[in-house]
Amino acid sequence: MSPSPQRDHSERGYIIPIGGAEQKVRDATILERFIELCGRRAHIAVIPTASELKDTGRRYERLFRKLGADRVSVLNLKRREHCESEDVVEAIEEADGIFMTGGNQLRLSTILGGTAVAQAIRRRNAEGIHVAGTSAGAAFMPEHMIAGGDSGSTPRADMVQLAPGLGLTNRFIIDQHFRQRDRLGRLLTALAYNPFAVGVGLDEDTAAFIGPDDTLEVYGSGGITMVDPSELKESTMDSAHRHEPVSLIGIRLHILVRGGVYDIESRSARLG
Amino acid sequence: MSPSPQRDHSERGYIIPIGGAEQKVRDATILERFIELCGRRAHIAVIPTASELKDTGRRYERLFRKLGADRVSVLNLKRREHCESEDVVEAIEEADGIFMTGGNQLRLSTILGGTAVAQAIRRRNAEGIHVAGTSAGAAFMPEHMIAGGDSGSTPRADMVQLAPGLGLTNRFIIDQHFRQRDRLGRLLTALAYNPFAVGVGLDEDTAAFIGPDDTLEVYGSGGITMVDPSELKESTMDSAHRHEPVSLIGIRLHILVRGGVYDIESRSARLG
Repeated sequence: MSPSPQRDHSERGYIIPIGGAEQKVRDATILERFIELCGRRAHIAVIPTASELKDTGRRYERLFRKLGADRVSVLNLKRREHCESEDVVEAIEEADGIFMTGGNQLRLSTILGGTAVAQAIRRRNAEGIHVAGTSAGAAFMPEHMIAGGDSGSTPRADMVQLAPGLGLTNRFIIDQHFRQRDRLGRLLTALAYNPFAVGVGLDEDTAAFIGPDDTLEVYGSGGITMVDPSELKESTMDSAHRHEPVSLIGIRLHILVRGGVYDIESRSARLG
Repeated sequence: MSPSPQRDHSERGYIIPIGGAEQKVRDATILERFIELCGRRAHIAVIPTASELKDTGRRYERLFRKLGADRVSVLNLKRREHCESEDVVEAIEEADGIFMTGGNQLRLSTILGGTAVAQAIRRRNAEGIHVAGTSAGAAFMPEHMIAGGDSGSTPRADMVQLAPGLGLTNRFIIDQHFRQRDRLGRLLTALAYNPFAVGVGLDEDTAAFIGPDDTLEVYGSGGITMVDPSELKESTMDSAHRHEPVSLIGIRLHILVRGGVYDIESRSARLG
């Protein structure tokens, strides 16, 4: 599930993980910016699979229409066989933007994983279509998905459960409800397993707009905690026993708010 | 850590996961075949990082020389800073084959992950150099690595710990000491998170030679259990509580022995 190879050198679309609980009516800057990116007369495909509430899809349909979308298709994918339907794949082929709601990210990975729908989303994003997701929808986006874990700020062995995600990016590992649910420890643990990726801890009502050049810009009212393990000198992750705290020496951390920018190539952050 | 993009259309090299405890003197068919693939006057780079025994590297050096290798470089990578050394990267650039020993796969991912050495191995494999690994060295090869877990044949939520691996392939998830340590359950659990990959359960003294076309051929004295979740109809993986058994309806299973072949494109198996 690594990022889909890009055809004919088109730029990939934005990848937009949102930390959950984004403002939907007043100060809906994140959703507004998403719809704006998707262009005039945008067609948005909504995937409410993570949620088990009946009206999640319809709710976003109303919101996106209010924000100016021309057409919204709610794709009710509740079983793996739904994800092989030609109609559904066609809706994704025709969309200008794709939005995955919150809920349980394991519903997304177990229902969409390996199906025609997952392939279509990956291909469309590689072709330039923007993909946004909130909470569980955000967690599902990268190659390595945080499926669950414990709260607390100190990393501990076995603190986090990783699983394969959708694979839109393999440069970031994403966590959400970050400050609200005290998740620094589990993000550090996830990164410590193999310190090749950069961690993105998204507060609620906060989004990372990750452009085609892998530059990330912050929108919304909270902060994003960027965790860079590339200069990690020492780690006891390989020897720590279950539940034991883990030593990590040399983590770099940045907190970015609205307008802040992170450049993955140089691994550098700047204020907006 | 997705597979390195291939340059100038050269074919990638073989990926050769071995289930551990391979025959080293009599009937050493797996290691013989690896050295044969690497060509006449082969230079083999041995990475004993997973092991904490002092003589693991030297032992394979003697073995590979006996089997006809012209030169063997043992790369003692014990800390992350060792993996940024130019000399070490040069040895990998000059090697015709790379071999990772057994031990603890978390030592490989935590020490090599994100370093110049990991990048060099990925690039060299993409350029046509063969990479073999036994036990922990095999587990580390794919994008999604089984870091640990429990034994038993029925999948249970939380039965397996996944972590990012080296990323030489993202089409297979590999488990080893398969029959000897009763690992069907944990491989099923790993696949159930996101049923896009195919599971490869390697018995001891058994290897999968995965060619550039992702066709897999079995060598050695044991069996390989191929687990294909692509026709999975139903799964309770998203709702099962910790330690609970998981329902999976529609798994396809093949057991292959010496000479057996599996074709990932058609997801079909045949006797040798």
